[in-house]
Amino acid sequence: MSTKVKKVGKQTIKLENPPKIISTYSIVGPKEGQGPLKDYFHQIISDDTLGKDSFEKAESEMMYTAIKSAISSAGLTEEKIDYLFAGDLLNQIISSGFAARELNIPFIGLYGACSTMSESLSMASLFLDGGFANYVVASTSSHFSSAERQFRFPLEYGSQRCPTCQWTVTGSGAMVLGKTGNYPEVTYVTTGLVKDYGEKDTNNMGAAMAPAAVDTIYNHFKDTGRTPKDYDVIATGDLGKVGKDITTKLLLEYGYDVKDNYVDCGDMIFNDEEQKTDAGGSGCGCSAVVTCGYFYKKLMKKEIKSLLLVSTGALMSTTSSLQGESIPGIAHAVAIEFK
Amino acid sequence: MSTKVKKVGKQTIKLENPPKIISTYSIVGPKEGQGPLKDYFHQIISDDTLGKDSFEKAESEMMYTAIKSAISSAGLTEEKIDYLFAGDLLNQIISSGFAARELNIPFIGLYGACSTMSESLSMASLFLDGGFANYVVASTSSHFSSAERQFRFPLEYGSQRCPTCQWTVTGSGAMVLGKTGNYPEVTYVTTGLVKDYGEKDTNNMGAAMAPAAVDTIYNHFKDTGRTPKDYDVIATGDLGKVGKDITTKLLLEYGYDVKDNYVDCGDMIFNDEEQKTDAGGSGCGCSAVVTCGYFYKKLMKKEIKSLLLVSTGALMSTTSSLQGESIPGIAHAVAIEFK
Repeated sequence: MSTKVKKVGKQTIKLENPPKIISTYSIVGPKEGQGPLKDYFHQIISDDTLGKDSFEKAESEMMYTAIKSAISSAGLTEEKIDYLFAGDLLNQIISSGFAARELNIPFIGLYGACSTMSESLSMASLFLDGGFANYVVASTSSHFSSAERQFRFPLEYGSQRCPTCQWTVTGSGAMVLGKTGNYPEVTYVTTGLVKDYGEKDTNNMGAAMAPAAVDTIYNHFKDTGRTPKDYDVIATGDLGKVGKDITTKLLLEYGYDVKDNYVDCGDMIFNDEEQKTDAGGSGCGCSAVVTCGYFYKKLMKKEIKSLLLVSTGALMSTTSSLQGESIPGIAHAVAIEFK
Repeated sequence: MSTKVKKVGKQTIKLENPPKIISTYSIVGPKEGQGPLKDYFHQIISDDTLGKDSFEKAESEMMYTAIKSAISSAGLTEEKIDYLFAGDLLNQIISSGFAARELNIPFIGLYGACSTMSESLSMASLFLDGGFANYVVASTSSHFSSAERQFRFPLEYGSQRCPTCQWTVTGSGAMVLGKTGNYPEVTYVTTGLVKDYGEKDTNNMGAAMAPAAVDTIYNHFKDTGRTPKDYDVIATGDLGKVGKDITTKLLLEYGYDVKDNYVDCGDMIFNDEEQKTDAGGSGCGCSAVVTCGYFYKKLMKKEIKSLLLVSTGALMSTTSSLQGESIPGIAHAVAIEFK
């Protein structure tokens, strides 16, 4: 066996045969459909239950729709897809498992909390580069109402929100990756370490996840020899306003000034003041729909030529928090370029 | 980009550069340590809390111990490991996330319920074959007491068990894969489809998962042109007695007679009558410790020269079951050979 490994540095793979993102699909709820990015989503639903009898079933249906629509928009059929990588926030990733049940595609379930878009995109990219597939789908989803009742309180309680709270995005994104064609391509994959700086406040996920984002972005630059200037946009997953500020400051301490081209998907998706979303959007679906909708369309028009997507996840559960544990974070970075 | 893909058939990859399983570690609870395989486990703990103040923390500690021990038994250090693939049964895979927090290894979280050992082993193998790593760790865990209270009832209720019930294994297994040396190697990876034949009884997981096991084994044979005779042992994950019977019968209907060399890890780990484990063992840890302990030691001694490991997972949650959903199953197959 060849001893050559495609890694650059400790955490990054440089893709020898950069896979192409040949299509995407984003589906969002009514609230997201009223936000600043409304013109970029492929589908805005008017009823966030989608006619199903539970929010969980509605979330799974959204993911199924995103996957099926991304496949058909690529001009493909299910039979052509070699692997589906998907995960979500719900216990035992039921949104993904039940969506996969309706699809005749070998399924690899992931859990990376809100880092799942870049986690699934990383896996899909490496599977293509490794020669294991012709077409792979990466997907994730979240739903405000299924997340609230699982992680916080039943909606009926009408619990008060705090200024650092984020609003879980109702939405799902799916991408189809292939080997050929004139499409944005994945050039680098940087896989994250779990970072925990002791934050225990589950109403301040941005602060909990920021150190992981900083660590992954820092190591991406270190591994690749790149700098912030090499990207038109650096986008973290769903740190919201609080986490975004922390990330900007910490990266500057590490010698990387990102203030000119750094955005956060959670900070972009809502008009927080008008829409009362406090510190911004969150959830696996957040970076998924912003990337599959907004960024992909910008890339296709070459209004953006390079994007470093860094979805961020908080790896706690209600059980770990009740047992007094702090919140471990993780972030995976994927470089997408179209030149 | 080359259009050559390493797939044989729809679901199977033939590894061009078969990765080697260079070390394993299995750690089990006291009950597993009294079962028929007790002499094969690397470590039997006498206190299933490991001195921690919760079962969940104990489970995570078991996984951490398995991973650290597998790495050191391979003569390696954490810094040499390129990726950790891990997942478990707990909500938001906290056993894995918190174990990964203590390890300086890029972490890719998986969820495949009790199929996680073969899912993580599949990913680890493909990452090596794809040229993305020199060393990768695959791991999973489960704990009787954390699983009971999450999926069923608080232990304090003393709920009655039924004859089709299985007993979640307390244990964790970890494998280190590398590229060289005289070790058992991974030759084929068959990734499963989600199968759901409408079983809703969460006290009969074996029946729910059996169709997925049958589908994956059938497609493994179809894709590779192999037959049951090509393996010394075919081992499903944790179907227990009920699921094993169904699998044997269904495979015969498909034309594959496996009665001579088919075993189930859930059926092997306990002496069900004496240990009152009803239909057998289950949980992610079940196929993990049986493979990392029993099978790996048999392979190293060449008492077994070829194993088809087919860990099986049930992809439901308590929420999906309470909402009236049936139980989707999945199974991934990995061929391990040492000739």
